[in-house]
Amino acid sequence: MLFRDVGLLSPGTGAAGSVSDDAVLDALVATEAAYLRALVAVGIAPESAVLPDVINGLDPADLAARAEEGGNPVIPLIADLKKAAPDAAAWIHKGATSQDILDTALMLVAGRTRALLHDRLGDTVANLATLAEEHRGTVAAARTLTQHAVPTTYGLRFATWLTALLDARDALDAVVLPVQLGGAAGTMAALVELGGVDQALAMPAAFAAQLGLAVSASPWHTNRAPVLALGNALTGVIDVYGMVGANVATLSRTEIGELVPRAGGGSSTMPQKQNPVAAVLLRSLSLRAPGLLSTLHVSAASFVDERPDGAWHAEWPALRELLRMAAGGSSTLVSALEFDVDLDAVARNLALDDLRAEQRSLGGSDGTYTGLSDHFIDAAIERARA
Amino acid sequence: MLFRDVGLLSPGTGAAGSVSDDAVLDALVATEAAYLRALVAVGIAPESAVLPDVINGLDPADLAARAEEGGNPVIPLIADLKKAAPDAAAWIHKGATSQDILDTALMLVAGRTRALLHDRLGDTVANLATLAEEHRGTVAAARTLTQHAVPTTYGLRFATWLTALLDARDALDAVVLPVQLGGAAGTMAALVELGGVDQALAMPAAFAAQLGLAVSASPWHTNRAPVLALGNALTGVIDVYGMVGANVATLSRTEIGELVPRAGGGSSTMPQKQNPVAAVLLRSLSLRAPGLLSTLHVSAASFVDERPDGAWHAEWPALRELLRMAAGGSSTLVSALEFDVDLDAVARNLALDDLRAEQRSLGGSDGTYTGLSDHFIDAAIERARA
Amino acid sequence: MLFRDVGLLSPGTGAAGSVSDDAVLDALVATEAAYLRALVAVGIAPESAVLPDVINGLDPADLAARAEEGGNPVIPLIADLKKAAPDAAAWIHKGATSQDILDTALMLVAGRTRALLHDRLGDTVANLATLAEEHRGTVAAARTLTQHAVPTTYGLRFATWLTALLDARDALDAVVLPVQLGGAAGTMAALVELGGVDQALAMPAAFAAQLGLAVSASPWHTNRAPVLALGNALTGVIDVYGMVGANVATLSRTEIGELVPRAGGGSSTMPQKQNPVAAVLLRSLSLRAPGLLSTLHVSAASFVDERPDGAWHAEWPALRELLRMAAGGSSTLVSALEFDVDLDAVARNLALDDLRAEQRSLGGSDGTYTGLSDHFIDAAIERARA
Amino acid sequence: MLFRDVGLLSPGTGAAGSVSDDAVLDALVATEAAYLRALVAVGIAPESAVLPDVINGLDPADLAARAEEGGNPVIPLIADLKKAAPDAAAWIHKGATSQDILDTALMLVAGRTRALLHDRLGDTVANLATLAEEHRGTVAAARTLTQHAVPTTYGLRFATWLTALLDARDALDAVVLPVQLGGAAGTMAALVELGGVDQALAMPAAFAAQLGLAVSASPWHTNRAPVLALGNALTGVIDVYGMVGANVATLSRTEIGELVPRAGGGSSTMPQKQNPVAAVLLRSLSLRAPGLLSTLHVSAASFVDERPDGAWHAEWPALRELLRMAAGGSSTLVSALEFDVDLDAVARNLALDDLRAEQRSLGGSDGTYTGLSDHFIDAAIERARA
Repeated sequence: MLFRDVGLLSPGTGAAGSVSDDAVLDALVATEAAYLRALVAVGIAPESAVLPDVINGLDPADLAARAEEGGNPVIPLIADLKKAAPDAAAWIHKGATSQDILDTALMLVAGRTRALLHDRLGDTVANLATLAEEHRGTVAAARTLTQHAVPTTYGLRFATWLTALLDARDALDAVVLPVQLGGAAGTMAALVELGGVDQALAMPAAFAAQLGLAVSASPWHTNRAPVLALGNALTGVIDVYGMVGANVATLSRTEIGELVPRAGGGSSTMPQKQNPVAAVLLRSLSLRAPGLLSTLHVSAASFVDERPDGAWHAEWPALRELLRMAAGGSSTLVSALEFDVDLDAVARNLALDDLRAEQRSLGGSDGTYTGLSDHFIDAAIERARA
Repeated sequence: MLFRDVGLLSPGTGAAGSVSDDAVLDALVATEAAYLRALVAVGIAPESAVLPDVINGLDPADLAARAEEGGNPVIPLIADLKKAAPDAAAWIHKGATSQDILDTALMLVAGRTRALLHDRLGDTVANLATLAEEHRGTVAAARTLTQHAVPTTYGLRFATWLTALLDARDALDAVVLPVQLGGAAGTMAALVELGGVDQALAMPAAFAAQLGLAVSASPWHTNRAPVLALGNALTGVIDVYGMVGANVATLSRTEIGELVPRAGGGSSTMPQKQNPVAAVLLRSLSLRAPGLLSTLHVSAASFVDERPDGAWHAEWPALRELLRMAAGGSSTLVSALEFDVDLDAVARNLALDDLRAEQRSLGGSDGTYTGLSDHFIDAAIERARA
Repeated sequence: MLFRDVGLLSPGTGAAGSVSDDAVLDALVATEAAYLRALVAVGIAPESAVLPDVINGLDPADLAARAEEGGNPVIPLIADLKKAAPDAAAWIHKGATSQDILDTALMLVAGRTRALLHDRLGDTVANLATLAEEHRGTVAAARTLTQHAVPTTYGLRFATWLTALLDARDALDAVVLPVQLGGAAGTMAALVELGGVDQALAMPAAFAAQLGLAVSASPWHTNRAPVLALGNALTGVIDVYGMVGANVATLSRTEIGELVPRAGGGSSTMPQKQNPVAAVLLRSLSLRAPGLLSTLHVSAASFVDERPDGAWHAEWPALRELLRMAAGGSSTLVSALEFDVDLDAVARNLALDDLRAEQRSLGGSDGTYTGLSDHFIDAAIERARA
Repeated sequence: MLFRDVGLLSPGTGAAGSVSDDAVLDALVATEAAYLRALVAVGIAPESAVLPDVINGLDPADLAARAEEGGNPVIPLIADLKKAAPDAAAWIHKGATSQDILDTALMLVAGRTRALLHDRLGDTVANLATLAEEHRGTVAAARTLTQHAVPTTYGLRFATWLTALLDARDALDAVVLPVQLGGAAGTMAALVELGGVDQALAMPAAFAAQLGLAVSASPWHTNRAPVLALGNALTGVIDVYGMVGANVATLSRTEIGELVPRAGGGSSTMPQKQNPVAAVLLRSLSLRAPGLLSTLHVSAASFVDERPDGAWHAEWPALRELLRMAAGGSSTLVSALEFDVDLDAVARNLALDDLRAEQRSLGGSDGTYTGLSDHFIDAAIERARA
């Protein structure tokens, strides 16, 4: 039996097709094709050297099996591509190394996934802005260290989630996704050999232009700043999923009941249960992401030589799993925010405890004691709508 | 496009079919079937209630999609099982909860994988014992903080790897893999309701007997000691893969050259390269495992209530990935140990530096200064052969 | 300004003096002294060679500064010890290496801390057994995925915490804490040179006997199984702190109010607040431990050569911090369990929701539907009192 | 015995006084003083309310002990400050909450440390630029997966380290360090109560101006983006320490010998040893940082309510330890780069293997086959000197 993960043990990551092995394989092929077009564009390869962007019949599982020998899937893929495009065979991958292709393809997958994610999160941004506006006046108990503290508003609560999500999305959008191009050891010597210094110098921009990726001032074979920036930002997005999930789950607690999931998940045995499943799944994602990020960092720190003895290989599944959770979780986030605010419960809880103690200790007026809530809500909504 | 991981980005884990989603699904079905047989055995369900151990036509990807709603794959699976065995439908899963089935099925997958692993590691144990014996007299430079230190022997080096592997395998073999049985909230109330106290009390042993698993004194719904013990031990095995991989890779360095991989992996561009690929892949696994283990621990620490709001769900993919790496890595370990010891290189390196400085500072004899190497080798070999 | 951490940013770890730098320094001195006594005992050093167990005037900060050069504190310490005991100077540390002393001293610190911890946890074990007995009949709502599920009892809840704590304490008590003895590169060559094979063979047991530690069949210079076993077990203890803390904090929530901390922590601004501070601090410890454990594992996997290029050094602060949190948290755990069970709140919450839905779906009786709770409580109490 | 860490187990972090508990306490006092000055500046407090920036006689260990009760050191500190400045007592901390002070003080500590770090790294930046220029023509073997690959130059190797360091330093410099100001639950209600909306709105900027920190558009009580950005960037710096350390240690290996540490650390037993201690310590730091970063992320994801039940407390020691390693490691990095390049060893290694195989397979010229090395070196040096 071969290994296969189709999500059976990863609920909450359903919308992650863009980071599937199939999608990675597509990106690898697209990267080799783009590289060849770049070789033609700068004048190293002849115009007749063409590799289609899509090759039918490639099987990720077969490539995975053949990847064991050389340690990466690019090596067997090149053989398949040369067979599929025999006329271009002499020029396919010429002057590149496996790392150029795999690093670039993962950036391509990241870019494609980020675009989807940006859009999907856009719906949530709009939804949270609406919620914040709608519940601007819904005064509720704020809680610190699990205890009622002072009043707040649901509008501010939603605005805070909104701000956190915008911060995380902006940080992800700001990540630069560059092509990798260094050749065997980061010198681009083969390209210079093939075409001379000027043509080699033109290659990174030509390659990047083909793929809509950025250009880096030098190869990042061993300086993993781009991978770390991406991993940090993805984890930041998933952190927000977790924070929102933890809050929705808590505010849905039977005794609190301020949020009521519209389509709570059922139980296999208890007919009355309405579980805040989507929120729970978001929280589960957020417990998993930090360990994966730690792998990216410990790997980056272990990049010895001009290509390391394992640290590069360790990045791939960790980075892909972060992409998977960020992408898949964006749909789960939509579900988690499908709740009603039970205004009776909010009011009932608000009356439970003396939330005006601080106010009185200040000589207090009889205002709602919600401070600058409206200002913070305005700022968040304005940013969301910008 | 759906998500699918077939190993394209995880070379080094090829031999991990036993933890595939398909294998997990098989285990889930086997667990429900065993549970039903246990219900019959203790007299709660009638003998006519039978669920086959294998149900054809179940699709992990379909179950994964349907798992999003309730948050786990057992809920949709029960519906499918009831359809597949309509006569037993009223008794399938009766008195159990999703967690009982999923926790138990993962322990079953772990047990099956451990058995395979034990055997596969047995070959490596034998191989290392042979290597230790064979190179008992191969005096070599020991290195500390990357610098030559004093003499050692290759026999001792191999014996140390062997001892580490035996320690890790013994620790994994010692992990108790219990069935989970608690019902909706760990009280087994439904089973008492269905059959009375005595029949309920008999259930854990009956269930465990069907699956070859252990019995726990009480449900471990929220006390994740069994999961942690398993995760610790799996990571311990992978740590040893990493330690051996790091050493083989280092000792294969061009300048050191003491170990020569017989089937070094090729390069996509450099025809002369013979990379210690298997060793490199082992090291990559070992950089990934600790982050996953941290997820298991942080989840265990977050098991609030009688079933938590995400921490249980976070365990599944982390635990499975550790099983995958431990299982898959056992074959990669076999490959990593397929090397020749280049005795000339060993001797040449030994002569590079003054390894007898400490010996002379002690007033030194002219012995080989290899201390108790032979004793330690003997102890390791004896243990391996026990 | 020199660096100093006296706990300002680590509330919840107050009772951790046994792992202070001062305590580590004491252990280092005790280890060198024990090593010298062992040399005498086996006949390598003369009886006149004596190093006191306690040396006055040693300053950890001074040694820390001097440790930067050689990379570990043992090197400058040896110089100080030789000055302090000039008659024994020729024999101090003879045949040992820094790692022998530091590894052993950390095991000694661990052993001393474990003994304190075992005793302190004993009070909590007794307390939880009493609580479980006392609340055997306190029927309460069980919660899963934050929602009311079926009934349970507070007795079972406390019994579950008790079982988790006993599991974790037993696992820690089962960890074997061996002396390290390998010499410069794990061959014990210097000791053979100094005394011959038989005397060298006698040394590990002689050394261990002096310190009350265990003997390992061979040096564990590069096989870090003992460190990992210790780290795993300490994290397991802290995980239980976290699980209990998360539950106490949740059950103390204003709306739930089933547990009422007797001495809740105050707020800097809100006079009415009674925060479950000890529970909160326990949870904070448990969020920190898994990352430290991951360091121990990634380090173990990176033990290349006969002493690695950083992985050994990385262990020390991680292991010490785990010891610190386990030790310090044991007092915080005592505080976290100082609460009253508000029986009215328990009853009020129990009535909130239909907890008998599952029972009725089974054709239900009118029993309390608490299943085998009493049996599980009995089992936990019996174990606690054993 | 109280707990005290003065660095005995953390060699390589010596230059970290700026993050000492004493420095944190100084920052806490400075933050309360600045907050009071801001209250005066916006017209809430009278001009007579003055708290000195420095209060003598405060003892971090005493405050640490008293912090156990309320869970943070600010609560007991306020009491001490009120005693020290009785005339200002009524206004000290008025309208703020503990989190405002502690979050802000840690940002202040971070800012002070970052300034030191920026300068210290500046020396290394200059040094690496010089090395890159000096060794522009030092052709050497590039290694991938531990094996000789193609030629590179030492200039390019140093330029790559330089680029990585500049990337990491720039990323750290770009982190925005804002004051925290939200009051009890993030609404700033107390400040509005005390001074009205306009005065409250003016407070964040007034507070920030006093401390040289940034202003955030809204409180980040529960949106930990600033802490994550800081943690990510610090870990990124430490990752580079590790990458450089791993390379220096490897290139100093006895058999490779291309780098020769000028002041290699000694051994406690082997007189001939010259260990690349600083490089080893850098690598040890880099194995530790990722686990701490994972704590920051898992904590951020667990920020439930308006102040969470442990996740905030878990941040402090993790963030401080990252600051400590980044700060301390900057001096260790200076030491690690104190080496000579042994040109004979470089040349000898270069001749070991056929590094021109790729070149010949391309129809190869007889150039040095170092491609764009000079261009990449130029780019790095230019950036360093900008």
